[in-house]
Amino acid sequence: MNDTLKQLDQVLKQRKQNAEPDSSYVASLHSKGLNKILEKVGEEACETIIAAKDAQLSGNSKEIIGECADLWFHSLVMLSHLGEDSSAVLKELERRFDLSGLDEKASR
Amino acid sequence: MNDTLKQLDQVLKQRKQNAEPDSSYVASLHSKGLNKILEKVGEEACETIIAAKDAQLSGNSKEIIGECADLWFHSLVMLSHLGEDSSAVLKELERRFDLSGLDEKASR
Amino acid sequence: MNDTLKQLDQVLKQRKQNAEPDSSYVASLHSKGLNKILEKVGEEACETIIAAKDAQLSGNSKEIIGECADLWFHSLVMLSHLGEDSSAVLKELERRFDLSGLDEKASR
Amino acid sequence: MNDTLKQLDQVLKQRKQNAEPDSSYVASLHSKGLNKILEKVGEEACETIIAAKDAQLSGNSKEIIGECADLWFHSLVMLSHLGEDSSAVLKELERRFDLSGLDEKASR
Repeated sequence: MNDTLKQLDQVLKQRKQNAEPDSSYVASLHSKGLNKILEKVGEEACETIIAAKDAQLSGNSKEIIGECADLWFHSLVMLSHLGEDSSAVLKELERRFDLSGLDEKASR
Repeated sequence: MNDTLKQLDQVLKQRKQNAEPDSSYVASLHSKGLNKILEKVGEEACETIIAAKDAQLSGNSKEIIGECADLWFHSLVMLSHLGEDSSAVLKELERRFDLSGLDEKASR
Repeated sequence: MNDTLKQLDQVLKQRKQNAEPDSSYVASLHSKGLNKILEKVGEEACETIIAAKDAQLSGNSKEIIGECADLWFHSLVMLSHLGEDSSAVLKELERRFDLSGLDEKASR
Repeated sequence: MNDTLKQLDQVLKQRKQNAEPDSSYVASLHSKGLNKILEKVGEEACETIIAAKDAQLSGNSKEIIGECADLWFHSLVMLSHLGEDSSAVLKELERRFDLSGLDEKASR
């Protein structure tokens, strides 16, 4: 049921509709517009790459987990800005990997 | 329960351990090493940014959903390469957004 | 006089106008369009980041020089695609760093 | 002679050696270290991509020229941090495009 992403979609939807730019980071991103949101997606992707190189050396994953969370979070804000949410992305991943098929097999 | 990502983690884990680089895209990424995987993460992040700009103009989300799926997929391969999976990232997102708290409230 | 970049601008201008996509990499990039060129800019930026991390560890700069050349080259193709060339970028850098002023001082 | 980049290399070299982090943006980047510099390279690459998409629509190149200047500038800071400068990159570009050959022909 992809609960975490589904809940996050809900939180993001509310903050897009109701929140004041001054009081919510998400609302401030929406009010700055798509370019600002995409800059954040790109920035977090680069920080993810850098953190992954460091994780390989150090064997410590704390940083890379945090950066990957930032990357996914800002992709969710981007999807929300475009009127989409995580469900369409997860459906696409299921389709490609035939995961519904795996589900079916598992339930037999 | 984040089923889709959990299932994908399982598929990726198996392909990392068992598959032949010739027969599996994921196995070939692992055999080429972290740099190749990170190049793909960066590439898909840029394609996501470009597709988002096009989606805003066209109002058509098909491309951006596919690129975002590519981006998340290659982040999962990266996590798998570093011995991690989606669960740590989702836990971090829950922690930041206090989603376990939301869960608790919802279950009352 | 920024000779190398100026000469490269000239080469790129000719290949944009005259060359067949089959015979020239630059012509093939132009025929595929701006998105393809921007994907290459993003890809080379990520490879530059990865190579810089490796250079810091190894003390060997060969890879990072090659990746940075790729990055600048594809930025020049992008500028050419948009009807610009390196001169406007260099002028902007001079303006910001007051290099024309440095020139003047040096020539006294 | 690639004067602008050569002059910029000189300015960057001085600021790396002499300047106080508090008074110089370049010195502050060096004191924060390679990761911070690479984050800036990645950030400016993404802003370049976004500005190029906007330039294609608007026909206005001002933004893309500024972003490309930012991208090249931060690549120069990165090279400086690694003990390199623009000359090695330009030499590599000349080698690939046989521009020294073009020079020679031009001077005949």
